[in-house]
Amino acid sequence: MAAWGQRLAGVRGVLLDISGVLFDGAEGSGVPIAGSVEAVARLKRSRLKVRFCTNESQKSLGDLVELLQQLGFDISEGEVTAPAPATCLILKERGLRPYLLISDGIRSEFDQIDTSNPNCVVIADAGESFSYQNMNKAFQVLMELENPVLISLGKGRYYKETSGLMLDVGAYVKALEYACGIEAEVVGKPSPEYFKSALQEMGLEAHQAIMIGDDIVGDVGGAQRCGMRALQVRTGKFRPSDEHHPEVKADGYVDNLAEAVDLLLQHADK
Amino acid sequence: MAAWGQRLAGVRGVLLDISGVLFDGAEGSGVPIAGSVEAVARLKRSRLKVRFCTNESQKSLGDLVELLQQLGFDISEGEVTAPAPATCLILKERGLRPYLLISDGIRSEFDQIDTSNPNCVVIADAGESFSYQNMNKAFQVLMELENPVLISLGKGRYYKETSGLMLDVGAYVKALEYACGIEAEVVGKPSPEYFKSALQEMGLEAHQAIMIGDDIVGDVGGAQRCGMRALQVRTGKFRPSDEHHPEVKADGYVDNLAEAVDLLLQHADK
Repeated sequence: MAAWGQRLAGVRGVLLDISGVLFDGAEGSGVPIAGSVEAVARLKRSRLKVRFCTNESQKSLGDLVELLQQLGFDISEGEVTAPAPATCLILKERGLRPYLLISDGIRSEFDQIDTSNPNCVVIADAGESFSYQNMNKAFQVLMELENPVLISLGKGRYYKETSGLMLDVGAYVKALEYACGIEAEVVGKPSPEYFKSALQEMGLEAHQAIMIGDDIVGDVGGAQRCGMRALQVRTGKFRPSDEHHPEVKADGYVDNLAEAVDLLLQHADK
Repeated sequence: MAAWGQRLAGVRGVLLDISGVLFDGAEGSGVPIAGSVEAVARLKRSRLKVRFCTNESQKSLGDLVELLQQLGFDISEGEVTAPAPATCLILKERGLRPYLLISDGIRSEFDQIDTSNPNCVVIADAGESFSYQNMNKAFQVLMELENPVLISLGKGRYYKETSGLMLDVGAYVKALEYACGIEAEVVGKPSPEYFKSALQEMGLEAHQAIMIGDDIVGDVGGAQRCGMRALQVRTGKFRPSDEHHPEVKADGYVDNLAEAVDLLLQHADK
């Protein structure tokens, strides 16, 4: 593999995944990953642009940012690209009234959305709310529609909490896709629109930006398909087999965000 | 389409799906589909061989047969090919110790199976037991295994209860397949081994048998791929769009089992 100087040349902005890169979640809280608080602070003091790009869909954006601030991170809502606000825009533009298969933690994001007489389903990381009853309701809503629309906030397979790996929304999306014979529209990584909107917020072209994430498919593969570079951290949901993934090869693997920032500050924007 | 006489010529045995053909299920009970009790009785008085071939995996075989007898059907356990007993044979043969993601109703079928220190997952139609917690446990068991084995009792998309369409085990199989990056082994329709074992019980070749079911993919498509003929009834989970399915075309569509039996008694075995 080429030297880091070559791999990071011309990088002017960094997209940071949040869960598994900044912190590991736990029931209602979380712990920062060692060195990440300082790494974010160092990045923000540098000439590099920084944007947070998350698929978090169990907490509202406000709650997520508040938690991160409590953990010591320098972050504000305006710096985060998150799927719920993007979904609300789509629902309004297309006159869609969703049945919401979501956790209570993110329900406030949809306060302004008409959910009467649903003509689509919105599915997010619902955790314990993925009961058979709720899944069946979503299924029945879709089966009643002539043109079933299923909008998914991300399509992750799993994420890591301090207690272990946890099933993510993507698994439940697959369940509904199979049962109904449909394909979901994904809002969030790895959707190209989602990465492009984050790039637009930064005022950068894809070749000037690098994604740092713990998901070899959603973060690394997704960003690379948009023409960005991408590093995988060996934290969060990282598994050793990711470094030999049959389809995706990161532009580099680093132990954690701190190491990524060391390398970026040394080699990027040169 | 050819005349019925031609389509049913040489049929010497009938495989009957149960749910949606004999009866529509409801919470803990069910109602016979009009004319089905008499249709089964007429079939059994004829020269045609009869076998019941079900993917039922929420109730034990004993409970299912007892329910059907209470509803008036002439049926005994020995006449039914069901997935749980077939699964137990596989588990024993291969020394597999399952984590059981199943309903309480079928748990007794696995009484003789060692479930300590699981080295595979068995998934059945678990209904309300498809909680996030149980799904996550199955997921975590699979992710811990070097060679994850997921055995699924059927792979149906949905079934019909008197209260409406209900998500079936196949949706949850897809969820685990996606999350773990694996493929399940299916015991039950539409697995060819399953149909073949039913044919063997009847002592018939595939070309001598016809399947009658309400599932255009699992019943009709599965049986046809084994060289059998298959009729779809317009009861149970049947939907009008099934008659224009992009991949599967039944050898005939009938309003219900009673009409199928009328036609069979008139034209089969000639």
